[in-house]
Amino acid sequence: MTEATPAPAYRKIALIGLGLIAGSMAWACRRDGMATEIRGYARSEKSREMTRRLGFCDVVCDSAEEAVQDADLIVLATPVGVMGAVAASIAPHLKPGAVVIDVGSVKRTVIEEVQPHIPEGVHFIPCHPMAGTEHSGPDAGFASLFDNRWCLIVPVDHTPDAEVARLEQFWSRLGAMTERMDPEHHDLVCAVVSHIPHLIAYTMVGVADDLSRVSDQEVIKFSAAGFRDFTRIAASDPTMWRDVFLTNKEATLEILGRFTEELFALQRAIRTGDGEQLHAYFTRTRAIRRSILEAGQDTNEPDFGRTR
Amino acid sequence: MTEATPAPAYRKIALIGLGLIAGSMAWACRRDGMATEIRGYARSEKSREMTRRLGFCDVVCDSAEEAVQDADLIVLATPVGVMGAVAASIAPHLKPGAVVIDVGSVKRTVIEEVQPHIPEGVHFIPCHPMAGTEHSGPDAGFASLFDNRWCLIVPVDHTPDAEVARLEQFWSRLGAMTERMDPEHHDLVCAVVSHIPHLIAYTMVGVADDLSRVSDQEVIKFSAAGFRDFTRIAASDPTMWRDVFLTNKEATLEILGRFTEELFALQRAIRTGDGEQLHAYFTRTRAIRRSILEAGQDTNEPDFGRTR
Repeated sequence: MTEATPAPAYRKIALIGLGLIAGSMAWACRRDGMATEIRGYARSEKSREMTRRLGFCDVVCDSAEEAVQDADLIVLATPVGVMGAVAASIAPHLKPGAVVIDVGSVKRTVIEEVQPHIPEGVHFIPCHPMAGTEHSGPDAGFASLFDNRWCLIVPVDHTPDAEVARLEQFWSRLGAMTERMDPEHHDLVCAVVSHIPHLIAYTMVGVADDLSRVSDQEVIKFSAAGFRDFTRIAASDPTMWRDVFLTNKEATLEILGRFTEELFALQRAIRTGDGEQLHAYFTRTRAIRRSILEAGQDTNEPDFGRTR
Repeated sequence: MTEATPAPAYRKIALIGLGLIAGSMAWACRRDGMATEIRGYARSEKSREMTRRLGFCDVVCDSAEEAVQDADLIVLATPVGVMGAVAASIAPHLKPGAVVIDVGSVKRTVIEEVQPHIPEGVHFIPCHPMAGTEHSGPDAGFASLFDNRWCLIVPVDHTPDAEVARLEQFWSRLGAMTERMDPEHHDLVCAVVSHIPHLIAYTMVGVADDLSRVSDQEVIKFSAAGFRDFTRIAASDPTMWRDVFLTNKEATLEILGRFTEELFALQRAIRTGDGEQLHAYFTRTRAIRRSILEAGQDTNEPDFGRTR
């Protein structure tokens, strides 16, 4: 008598784009025993070679068209700027009943660019796993990346509920919790929790690098005083982030506007010496940290428990 | 035959203010076997009680005046805004030859406010250990806080070099590396690597908290996408940070000006869709991260090696 293994959510999976997210999805599928075959394709020969060596794909193909042949689930895991072109090139090769998902950080533009290429009888269900690290490339992936993290599902009109539910089950087996959201709200939420934090981290690091009166050497030596946290975020993949800002223009500009407004208010408080306002502001923000810890979304170890 | 223990750098140490830094200094002294007696004082009865319970001081006094009696090294470890007042109150009780240091994050203002109270024959040597965590209070301290971190020493005029060297040896036994700097340059460097990063982290968290179109619940759930790093920094002690901005006005306003300038340039690139500029900017900042890792000032574990 053997224990029943849950049926595979999707038998054959094709990963288009072989970076941190695709690699982690493959490892998480393997951890769970899901999928009978995982095929992968990346535009760069280097990434394909690395993936062959790492072994998280059963087959690494030399074209996206070949990778999606007979696939039940196709994952668009490229930078969002090229997803439309990828969708156009694979469209004729998708089998009826297949599910196409993307894992991009922006949803409205991706839907606009991908959906028109999706053939009748194939379901496109946009996704956004809210997980990642500052590392990129096929070797950056690991099985537990999605554990206890949220994956936002942004279904387009007329997608059968059963297909969305099946996809939710898939993500849940990868370790993630899921929530459905509409594209506009998704793009706004992500501008707040991800896109603008990345932009200001990049900016802060750029300022430090550019300031001739403080040497790079000083910036590096004394970075433990706060700055180094920004450099981690600002070490993320430049192509991915370029595409995020080009495709989520509206929401990022809105949040950026709010950010500079608040920053100017604090700047004014510094200039006028308004200690009460500064103290009140710095106190209020502590509560959010507490809630994040209570929600299990971060560690309370000092300094994130960095190796000391 | 027993191994020679190095002579104590200072026999009796008085800690005024019992928070993360004072607690860590006491624990690090104990780890090293330095000091024959550590006395402590904090304004709040709660901190004194907690310190008695934690046991990192030999004696917890009920006044700063009592704590500094006969001390060889007096550490001002209060928020920088009250250091002048503390110096005034302890001045008449300092013994000739004693060394007074502060551990504040700002140097020019602290020197202006403390130095006038220091009696003839006592040496005031401003210090700034560039280490800390988001936690505060007597129970936040730990012995290894200063290991492999820099402590900036900002000697005032006419301090005998031997006294500065002795203090450097003390910090080195606490685990830190030291570097001498002048007060103006110190305040500028710290504005870049610490003060402005903290201010913009506080601002980002404030914006997220304040945005009615995105719920606090969403901000918390999806924080792993970048935002949570900012909340750690924005959970630091509000009083300490208020005082930093009130006393390092000039340098923080200068760096803030540079920061908004760069941010506006990136905002414009987003608005006009200038992908090349964004990509170039996001690529440049990766190099600084690499240097910080090479200098041993951070871990290269993904996500700081947070417990997964």
